[in-house]
Amino acid sequence: MERIKPRTLSGFMELLPQDQVLFDRMVSLLRENYALYGFTPLDTPAIEASEVLLAKAGGETEKQIYRFQKGDSDLSLRFDLTVPLAKYVALHYNELSFPFRRFQIGKVYRGERAQRGRFREFYQADIDVIGDGKLDIINEAEIPSIIYKTFTALGLHRFKIRVNNRKILNGLFELLGLKEQAGDVMRTIDKLEKIGPDKVKAILVDDFAVPAASADQLLTLLSTDDPMGALEKLSGQNETFDLGFAELKTVVDSMAAFGVPADHFMVDLTIARGLDYYTGTVYETVMLDHPEVGSICSGGRYDNLAEYYTEKQLPGVGISIGLTRLFFVLQDQKMLNPMLNTAPADVLILPMTEDMAPAISLATALRNAGVRTQIHAEQKKFKQKLSYANKLNIPFAVFLGEDEVKTGSATVKDFMLAEEDEQNRKQVTLPMEEAVAYIRKCLDADLDQRPIFDKEHYVEKYGLDK
Amino acid sequence: MERIKPRTLSGFMELLPQDQVLFDRMVSLLRENYALYGFTPLDTPAIEASEVLLAKAGGETEKQIYRFQKGDSDLSLRFDLTVPLAKYVALHYNELSFPFRRFQIGKVYRGERAQRGRFREFYQADIDVIGDGKLDIINEAEIPSIIYKTFTALGLHRFKIRVNNRKILNGLFELLGLKEQAGDVMRTIDKLEKIGPDKVKAILVDDFAVPAASADQLLTLLSTDDPMGALEKLSGQNETFDLGFAELKTVVDSMAAFGVPADHFMVDLTIARGLDYYTGTVYETVMLDHPEVGSICSGGRYDNLAEYYTEKQLPGVGISIGLTRLFFVLQDQKMLNPMLNTAPADVLILPMTEDMAPAISLATALRNAGVRTQIHAEQKKFKQKLSYANKLNIPFAVFLGEDEVKTGSATVKDFMLAEEDEQNRKQVTLPMEEAVAYIRKCLDADLDQRPIFDKEHYVEKYGLDK
Repeated sequence: MERIKPRTLSGFMELLPQDQVLFDRMVSLLRENYALYGFTPLDTPAIEASEVLLAKAGGETEKQIYRFQKGDSDLSLRFDLTVPLAKYVALHYNELSFPFRRFQIGKVYRGERAQRGRFREFYQADIDVIGDGKLDIINEAEIPSIIYKTFTALGLHRFKIRVNNRKILNGLFELLGLKEQAGDVMRTIDKLEKIGPDKVKAILVDDFAVPAASADQLLTLLSTDDPMGALEKLSGQNETFDLGFAELKTVVDSMAAFGVPADHFMVDLTIARGLDYYTGTVYETVMLDHPEVGSICSGGRYDNLAEYYTEKQLPGVGISIGLTRLFFVLQDQKMLNPMLNTAPADVLILPMTEDMAPAISLATALRNAGVRTQIHAEQKKFKQKLSYANKLNIPFAVFLGEDEVKTGSATVKDFMLAEEDEQNRKQVTLPMEEAVAYIRKCLDADLDQRPIFDKEHYVEKYGLDK
Repeated sequence: MERIKPRTLSGFMELLPQDQVLFDRMVSLLRENYALYGFTPLDTPAIEASEVLLAKAGGETEKQIYRFQKGDSDLSLRFDLTVPLAKYVALHYNELSFPFRRFQIGKVYRGERAQRGRFREFYQADIDVIGDGKLDIINEAEIPSIIYKTFTALGLHRFKIRVNNRKILNGLFELLGLKEQAGDVMRTIDKLEKIGPDKVKAILVDDFAVPAASADQLLTLLSTDDPMGALEKLSGQNETFDLGFAELKTVVDSMAAFGVPADHFMVDLTIARGLDYYTGTVYETVMLDHPEVGSICSGGRYDNLAEYYTEKQLPGVGISIGLTRLFFVLQDQKMLNPMLNTAPADVLILPMTEDMAPAISLATALRNAGVRTQIHAEQKKFKQKLSYANKLNIPFAVFLGEDEVKTGSATVKDFMLAEEDEQNRKQVTLPMEEAVAYIRKCLDADLDQRPIFDKEHYVEKYGLDK
């Protein structure tokens, strides 16, 4: 038979089983934490009619889209979860209650140039709150708390949420007479961290005709250690600015009640997040030890979600995590928790008698107790079966030999104790029922299974050796 | 602005929030129960190179495939999860441990003719055990137990798992001298339930030159009330038959130890499940009250998973649930549990003071206790907010008025009590901490949240009125 060489397309993440468990654990923690904030899950099709999906798109995005014909239909794969949400809300407007809070974790597709760490199929994990006509500022204030709780649940500790308000920037540009250059100025400011204040000033002055004094004033404000104090001094001169400042104050003032520690949060006036879409609070989240990664969770407030589909005014606020890329970074930085139980089973039963009934009954009892169990009945040597358990990191092996079967007991070997010497591993023979309870208890004691291992956090906190 | 009419493609399921919660609950129970049997989760790309995906395909399937060009690449959307599994195992053979047990729940794509209850994008929920060279019969015996436990966990009770063994059929055809017509005979037998024994006999005799005596013998065997007894009488004459019968006996004899009640399981010699692929035990699962739906979970044993990609012999056994179609049927038959908590939040907090801090702190405390909480701070009338809670079926509302804020307490209104008269609904004012504990306790008492409500089961068991 002629064989085809098996391969996976480049730019498509395909994980080995143990990494997949870690990835899935992240997804399940995201779902759980998003749900804690009253978001309902949604799952829209990966394929949409091209005219619907591309109602807004243009430029770079449109070029990257997977678009094709099937029969008479012009179809496209979704390139984000926001456009499908806009379609969903416009289409089902009468069946939804507002504010409508939804999360969606799903695959999106972009035919980007293949590159290390860039994916063509990747997961986005989004939440959005959509109002009908209006949306209270408290929804914007709540977002950092969701980011904080979610990443902490994942096991990440050393990160900071940066917020800004677009109305402040817009008001500021008006105040400084830079309204016409606003776009160019914003784009230049966005480079501040990369190229430094001198170069930013040069570009502003030389390329965009910003008066040197205005450039200085702007740069001083952006680099202040006390942004709230600096903003306070500027208030009372521009309505947009004042509105933005009031909103930002509400957000900042709510942080403590929302449970966000002061050291995980800051106002950063340089954050803009694109030009047109956002209209209020904007968010970025950076890993303190890996600023080169950029923002791992971003978003903001927008005024009009679905203007391409409906005349209804639907303001909202949302954030997105690029999950596939984040996972790639964590893998790359060796920040995945090596202690997390990634085994396909908690127990491997090794029957050593002809009659399988005792092994099957024990497996059934373990499964009824919620213990993930596999019976290894293949014609293999005992040693091979143990090595199978070890390769898969299965925490417990249970032996059922003739003695055990005769006395209705089971011998439990505990691989969770990470002894190098196999002989030293704890081994106990218990009556069947007690064996089930014993294993259940050991597993329950080990429930803190966070997928991210933030080593620097423990170095900082407990002075652990690097 | 010119607007595009929002729409979802026909043949693509898009659920409203409350149904989505039910669907997701099914997925999460499937994951949980598959995992109990020691299967590891996998997630392969939805897009593969066409030459890889279509290595085997042909005929009907190939016509239905979503295939397209992107740049120089000829790409296709997966049409099942088995071919991607074959590719995965062949590609990662050296990094996997065998037996390799994996489950995968994901979307697949088939451009079928649009029809009620037929989907072009649908979820499959598959498990497979893959051996390296060999695979013990116990893996085949275990499958009915997985089916039983999974559907019971979903809330379905009135279903039956039917098993057969392909070696028995093949041996039988050899015994009856029907080896050459085996395919035709099998296809005709498959219609037995639909068209009855007389018509089946007529087709066998007239169209496929089966001697009338052989047809009678076959039909008698297939319709016996005691298949195991009837098979016993035929044993000792054909090696393939005897092997199949021995395998079937092992499967049947293991059912009790695997916890499958006798009334949920039967041997059905008419089950064939396609022609070439399966080589041992085959499975179908039917809903007793909806036989018209056909099998809701099917599969079987095969000898060679990945012959198109590798010379390695990789036998396996697997089953698949067509989840999207199953959900459609359950919805259609009104078999989704109306008591399941499908609300996006467990608690809606209604702040009634200017200062939001107490509401935010309470929300934070509730979330830290694992209670899904939403703050409703929009500028709406009190009545509108209550009606919002009711529309979304949110079980608890918490009022924070001036009195509550002053005394550090919260007024909890319990909507779980399905009283028609709103005034009668239980309402208590408690100190903050106690309010959190009270709500947590009420929610914990209501944990049996099975997505399927199998009404006929309760009618039968408790004589409930239809």
